[in-house]
Amino acid sequence: MDKPTLNIVKIGGQIINDPTALKSFLNDFSSLEGPKILIHGGGKKATEIAVKLGLKPKMVMGRRITDQPNLEVAVMVYAGLINKNIIAQLQKNSCNALGLTGADANIIRASIRKVTDIDFGFAGDIESVDPRPFINFLKYKYTPVLAAITHDTKGQLLNTNADTIAAEVAAALTAQFDVVLTYCFDKKGVLMDINDENSVIENMNTTVYMALKESHKVVDGMLPKLFNCFYALNQGVSKVIIGKPSVIINNQQKHTTITL
Amino acid sequence: MDKPTLNIVKIGGQIINDPTALKSFLNDFSSLEGPKILIHGGGKKATEIAVKLGLKPKMVMGRRITDQPNLEVAVMVYAGLINKNIIAQLQKNSCNALGLTGADANIIRASIRKVTDIDFGFAGDIESVDPRPFINFLKYKYTPVLAAITHDTKGQLLNTNADTIAAEVAAALTAQFDVVLTYCFDKKGVLMDINDENSVIENMNTTVYMALKESHKVVDGMLPKLFNCFYALNQGVSKVIIGKPSVIINNQQKHTTITL
Repeated sequence: MDKPTLNIVKIGGQIINDPTALKSFLNDFSSLEGPKILIHGGGKKATEIAVKLGLKPKMVMGRRITDQPNLEVAVMVYAGLINKNIIAQLQKNSCNALGLTGADANIIRASIRKVTDIDFGFAGDIESVDPRPFINFLKYKYTPVLAAITHDTKGQLLNTNADTIAAEVAAALTAQFDVVLTYCFDKKGVLMDINDENSVIENMNTTVYMALKESHKVVDGMLPKLFNCFYALNQGVSKVIIGKPSVIINNQQKHTTITL
Repeated sequence: MDKPTLNIVKIGGQIINDPTALKSFLNDFSSLEGPKILIHGGGKKATEIAVKLGLKPKMVMGRRITDQPNLEVAVMVYAGLINKNIIAQLQKNSCNALGLTGADANIIRASIRKVTDIDFGFAGDIESVDPRPFINFLKYKYTPVLAAITHDTKGQLLNTNADTIAAEVAAALTAQFDVVLTYCFDKKGVLMDINDENSVIENMNTTVYMALKESHKVVDGMLPKLFNCFYALNQGVSKVIIGKPSVIINNQQKHTTITL
């Protein structure tokens, strides 16, 4: 029997920062049929609140460090304010959403990032994702909405990259579902020319990716995202899409489809 | 067939404010056998963060008002910081906890409190509790941990009294379970003399309650709590207990048991 399709959608700070864009996205997401999972990161709100609380963003070698006070803000804002406001809006749309972090139902076990040149503080690297809670929740028609917080199973919450969570969750569900993973961001897709919004690479696969990478045509910021995309595909995810938020309901608009 | 026993435990700010007491309570709670649900309110952390954010507690006629900024703090702190730290600690104890608000899985529908003499702002009065999500989660051996936030199903989150949530959730689950509801607080139970910690009224029923109320022996602060207790009992909850947190695993220590 064919496996049912599962849509996993990741949204980033650009949408979360813009209430109108978020509302529009959540309306689209609610209208998506079949089982689905939403994964979200933070946004400017966490920085705003950290600043108001008198915290300074801690940066080392251009990388953001999650110290204890900044972890508390991340947990409050991602798992509290943002997650629960998304849940309330989805419920308004009759989408029976269930907010989660990786600690809830022990879904995502992570370990604190090892100290090398940099001590990233309470940043989590994913060790494993348990597909069973997702399967249980989806069976009862709940729509899991996952904030980018995990735990180490020893009582410590950890700040974790939302793109990576999306790829790992997608990978963990390939045995049960035909998984389509969509990364929504502020561009129409992966661009050939960062200054030309219309230079979308509509179809990307490993060969195209390697060629682009060698010719330095892929901008640095895209590399970790594309790494996650190919990781997910290699783990059995059927298709990865990168595009503007509305791509989830309109596949006529330009976007990037990634396959192996 | 006898219904299985379900323990519903509500903890208040006194425990949440004290990390050692909270840890000890969560160890006890983890060791409770059988299906169980934890319900928690806020604590000093919300006030601390509100003050740091430059908000002033809004009081009208001695009652706290939940304006928009204070609602945001309640959502962040209750559903984010406190709830997820409890989840992480329970997971450490191999208690497979699942954090929730009343918006998640549409568990608790509330309406914004009507404006009478006072406009309470974003305070929610419970309209209904759906037992099904709890039954589903308990079936999969998840332990629901509910923060005192609900929603109006129209996209609005609402700050809601945790004692009332506990009573309403307990009442909603009496068809499926033999429900024991325990309110943990900083006294050994309902006291005959507020200045004598040992004057615990060990057995209370409607008759005893009415007599105490008429003779003004019940302190004002206890009245809403006792109202919730008798409400729950009238809805079919088997037993309500009021006592110190450790009463959940040690019923030899003095406490108040309330029956009809």
